[in-house]
Amino acid sequence: MQTLTLSPIGFVHSPFAEPSQVPRGLGAKHEEEGILEVLPEFEAGLKDIEGFSHLYVVWVFDRSQGYELEGKPPCDDRSHGVFATRSPRRPNPIGLTVVRLLRRSGRQLHVRGVDMIDGTPILDVKPYLSNVPESELRRGWLAEAEARREGAGRDRA
Amino acid sequence: MQTLTLSPIGFVHSPFAEPSQVPRGLGAKHEEEGILEVLPEFEAGLKDIEGFSHLYVVWVFDRSQGYELEGKPPCDDRSHGVFATRSPRRPNPIGLTVVRLLRRSGRQLHVRGVDMIDGTPILDVKPYLSNVPESELRRGWLAEAEARREGAGRDRA
Repeated sequence: MQTLTLSPIGFVHSPFAEPSQVPRGLGAKHEEEGILEVLPEFEAGLKDIEGFSHLYVVWVFDRSQGYELEGKPPCDDRSHGVFATRSPRRPNPIGLTVVRLLRRSGRQLHVRGVDMIDGTPILDVKPYLSNVPESELRRGWLAEAEARREGAGRDRA
Repeated sequence: MQTLTLSPIGFVHSPFAEPSQVPRGLGAKHEEEGILEVLPEFEAGLKDIEGFSHLYVVWVFDRSQGYELEGKPPCDDRSHGVFATRSPRRPNPIGLTVVRLLRRSGRQLHVRGVDMIDGTPILDVKPYLSNVPESELRRGWLAEAEARREGAGRDRA
């Protein structure tokens, strides 16, 4: 496979009009509600999706231009490789978000936890099936950055 | 955005030569080890990935042809919408797998939990950052199919 050409299966309705409005960085909560609207020709593919509490949304950073293999994320002053971050400036501009499914209304999925901007193209939706064992989960530089910030907070206190 | 054209950032080395060898269905365990090999030009993007225990791998069902909006998964005798399943026959043939990162060796990521076949093109790798609250997790038709199977097992016993 040399290249793969994809088309949206739908679009996101989000309260965020611009990338700058999306909460970013350590401790950012994504509690905003939005709608995943699937195109009419794909509505049949939503059958039985209502039974899942959470969904993966695979989407496109369509406002992002080019990529950067290393960069400083908003929550750290050190640079990290793009595949160790959620940077929008990726070789393939694919975003991935876990949302909570609140309800379905026809071809609209009402969800909580959007971090995409309004009009974002959706490539795929999949059911979220299982967690990673919590005892095995390690979050690398992100955990270190959080620890440094908490340490700085204590120093200021 | 009408269409998006993507190219692989790397390829999977997997013990599975054919799709039929990949364990499927209810209770399928994905404990096989494999390697995510990133192309040389993207190696710098792996910086600091070692600190994460788990990764998302976004990949291509490159042996899949066409799609089906409804179908019966291997673990159920009822049909479900494609967006409520992990079927390879999706409008956009994108696969998503959570793997455990065992170690990095240059541009090779040794991982456990591959369910891709050998040579699968990789589109993106992202850090796995957090679980969904276990108390909120519902798995729709999959939980129902499991319960039916367990019931059938008891009937036979």
